[in-house]
Amino acid sequence: MVNLPLAPIRMTDQVPSKSNSIRPSQLRCIGCDRVFEKATQNFRCAHCGDLLEIVYPDWNTSDAARLDAAKLKDLWRQRRGSRFPVDESGVWRFRELLPSFGEKDVISLREGNTPLYEMPNCARVAGLPQLYAKHQGMNPTGSFKDTGMTVAASVARREGFRWVSCASTGNTSASMAAYAARGGMRSLVLIPEGKVSWGKLSQALDYGAVTCQLKTDFDGCMRVLNEVVQRMSVYLLNSVNPYRIEGQKTAAIELMEQLDWQPPDHIIVPGGNLGNSSALGKAFIEMRRLGLISRLPKVSIIQAAGANALVRTMRENGGSELVTVHAETAASAIRIGNPASWKKAVTVLEATSGTVEEVSEVEIALAKAEIGADGIGCEPASAVTLAGLKKLVKQGFVKPGESVILILTGHLLKDPEFTLKFHRGDLFAGAVSEKEVSILRPQQRAPIVLDATVDAVVQTLKAADDQLEL
Amino acid sequence: MVNLPLAPIRMTDQVPSKSNSIRPSQLRCIGCDRVFEKATQNFRCAHCGDLLEIVYPDWNTSDAARLDAAKLKDLWRQRRGSRFPVDESGVWRFRELLPSFGEKDVISLREGNTPLYEMPNCARVAGLPQLYAKHQGMNPTGSFKDTGMTVAASVARREGFRWVSCASTGNTSASMAAYAARGGMRSLVLIPEGKVSWGKLSQALDYGAVTCQLKTDFDGCMRVLNEVVQRMSVYLLNSVNPYRIEGQKTAAIELMEQLDWQPPDHIIVPGGNLGNSSALGKAFIEMRRLGLISRLPKVSIIQAAGANALVRTMRENGGSELVTVHAETAASAIRIGNPASWKKAVTVLEATSGTVEEVSEVEIALAKAEIGADGIGCEPASAVTLAGLKKLVKQGFVKPGESVILILTGHLLKDPEFTLKFHRGDLFAGAVSEKEVSILRPQQRAPIVLDATVDAVVQTLKAADDQLEL
Repeated sequence: MVNLPLAPIRMTDQVPSKSNSIRPSQLRCIGCDRVFEKATQNFRCAHCGDLLEIVYPDWNTSDAARLDAAKLKDLWRQRRGSRFPVDESGVWRFRELLPSFGEKDVISLREGNTPLYEMPNCARVAGLPQLYAKHQGMNPTGSFKDTGMTVAASVARREGFRWVSCASTGNTSASMAAYAARGGMRSLVLIPEGKVSWGKLSQALDYGAVTCQLKTDFDGCMRVLNEVVQRMSVYLLNSVNPYRIEGQKTAAIELMEQLDWQPPDHIIVPGGNLGNSSALGKAFIEMRRLGLISRLPKVSIIQAAGANALVRTMRENGGSELVTVHAETAASAIRIGNPASWKKAVTVLEATSGTVEEVSEVEIALAKAEIGADGIGCEPASAVTLAGLKKLVKQGFVKPGESVILILTGHLLKDPEFTLKFHRGDLFAGAVSEKEVSILRPQQRAPIVLDATVDAVVQTLKAADDQLEL
Repeated sequence: MVNLPLAPIRMTDQVPSKSNSIRPSQLRCIGCDRVFEKATQNFRCAHCGDLLEIVYPDWNTSDAARLDAAKLKDLWRQRRGSRFPVDESGVWRFRELLPSFGEKDVISLREGNTPLYEMPNCARVAGLPQLYAKHQGMNPTGSFKDTGMTVAASVARREGFRWVSCASTGNTSASMAAYAARGGMRSLVLIPEGKVSWGKLSQALDYGAVTCQLKTDFDGCMRVLNEVVQRMSVYLLNSVNPYRIEGQKTAAIELMEQLDWQPPDHIIVPGGNLGNSSALGKAFIEMRRLGLISRLPKVSIIQAAGANALVRTMRENGGSELVTVHAETAASAIRIGNPASWKKAVTVLEATSGTVEEVSEVEIALAKAEIGADGIGCEPASAVTLAGLKKLVKQGFVKPGESVILILTGHLLKDPEFTLKFHRGDLFAGAVSEKEVSILRPQQRAPIVLDATVDAVVQTLKAADDQLEL
């Protein structure tokens, strides 16, 4: 057995704590506040059935001072130069703010470490002097799901599970299957028959998932899965799993490090199942509690108008009761009418003084093209952030002097079909007004068929130049 | 105008040279050795028409000692902790080995920084105790092309071009369009009519490329393009552009840093247009000349049997004259019968004592599934590396005690169609033998349609477990 001469491992794993005794994390019900040491198979509170969240007893009130903020920042910076696998992960590099884990138990694909891009074209269309986007779609499987999956899949393996499972046709199943394969576990994907998003499912198949198409709808798949995990030793990796939220938190920590720990005024997040906004908000709240940042950014959540459960919930009852909707939008990653993490998201909106907004299908398509024009690209669900930002600027909620970060959640290659339909002009197939067509047309670039002559190409170039100068 | 509180920039740009005068890079013809200060529009030698390569007069013979290897390694390591944009790029971090550039002239998407993954499943099927893969598909647009495009697009902008162009239906056009958009330039893609790979082209469209379908074949597109760049101020970004090769070099430098500067015994690279193997080989040769590494790995190149121009060239005439072929393979990224950089690749094979091998369509599909089973995934062209490695091990060219790095060039999401067809069982549509079908079948995982009952799912899980235990 030959060992490759990998760079020497330098352990930098001492938690800079003022005390030596670290108490393990616990699970707390967000409904009735009961605390548990261990989760049930379906990650629901055994008493009231609500969702659980991870809490760290050591961080309560004055104990928070046990973690030395300056030393933590220094430790995390040092790890950026390390070649130790858990240090190279943009999630586990921040492991002091995660449930404690032995390095050998970690399943990692070197997730996180996602870029923060300046977006000059998007700033211009939004009417802001400057705008940045943190691109979570640059994770290994092409979506932000990887940052949560590395933690939850690691928990599954540590607890001895051989099977993990989720109901999903999209980014979740792709990420789950990758981490399961990486960790030597098997994965089961349940999808409603006939509603298969084959493109995204290709990833789960490649990573070796067993895929069942059930003769029911998505909620039916979830019901079956919740019973399967009771009957067999199968670990549930849907977004009710609070360890996924913990991993997703780290995107906010990494962002703050990229901004030298100076919080921006606004964070704009797409809202689907609401796990991501819950995770980012939890991170900001915890970072402030631990003295890592001095104030909270406003976390605002944008939904597609056709899948606007949270928007309606906030507007109709101020967040006290979920209004479910029949979801319909081309932005498939946020096509969710009954978001699991709605209560956690309401907490984040309230704690950070953020807002909600909804955007139309045409607004999403236009914003996606504008993000592409910055040379970045994203999947349609990510583009709701820019579309929503434009509205928040017009409403005065975001002011021109304020700093704004868009959270892009998925890679352009997650949904090439949307992009092609948009440019061919058949995305909306007559379902939009003349005015909307005229707004979209300048962004559409269907290929031009030409004779194979230099003159034909030169004329096309000149015409494109003229068009730009108009 | 508000400035986001980005992390303070620490300049680490002093080249650790024993002399203060750095002579600029030059272009040298690989055919007649003539040296030029500036390239022609089509990047061909004005005298003999052969390709050009970038050379650094300061590195010749004894002058090479001007660059202090230990100090360079230290400098590059320091930059990993920097938030300065050119330091965050996995290409520009190694800028001492690239043509000199002002930071403001650099167009970057934070390319490079790609992971080196251990591949336990692939090691097992190849019959090796250990195996690693460097995944260039984790670049921003999903392929290794980004590492070269950041350099060549930056040259284009510095030279004042408003338009860049290439003939390509795949990864090159996606990458070019992204960097053009990022740099405020426009991009032109020429493609043969009727042979449009819509999935990959969706990226170029999203980033704003003008796309012309010409009524001709690929060579016809290249001919038209070569004339267009003579007639108009349009910068050519096909792989004949030697600045692309320079950028692609950095993957090898980054790999050596990941291996603590201890060269592996073997590097296995897919061979299409042969720019990538040329670039990686050039990097190893230069690193040895500069004292950064003490010996060369063997760089071996694997082609699809249906696009085996280099394999035939080496076997039929030892690399003295290109044998072109009519290319046909499902691995579209290496479907090239007339590779532009063949001579450069021959030089690399000779200098590093590498070899060539070809693999069948079935071998590619099988290897791709085996890479997927490691939780990584790649596009079909990347999978030739594992398929070829298996042969090289059987032939004894790669010995079980030797260290091997596979170079994966494209992301799984670049070609979901291939993956779907494979799992549905219609990739080969009857064109393979019974024996081949029986080899592929255990890897295929078409979704199973089930009644929406817990029993049905539980039975499927148990059957999958039983299958594994057989």
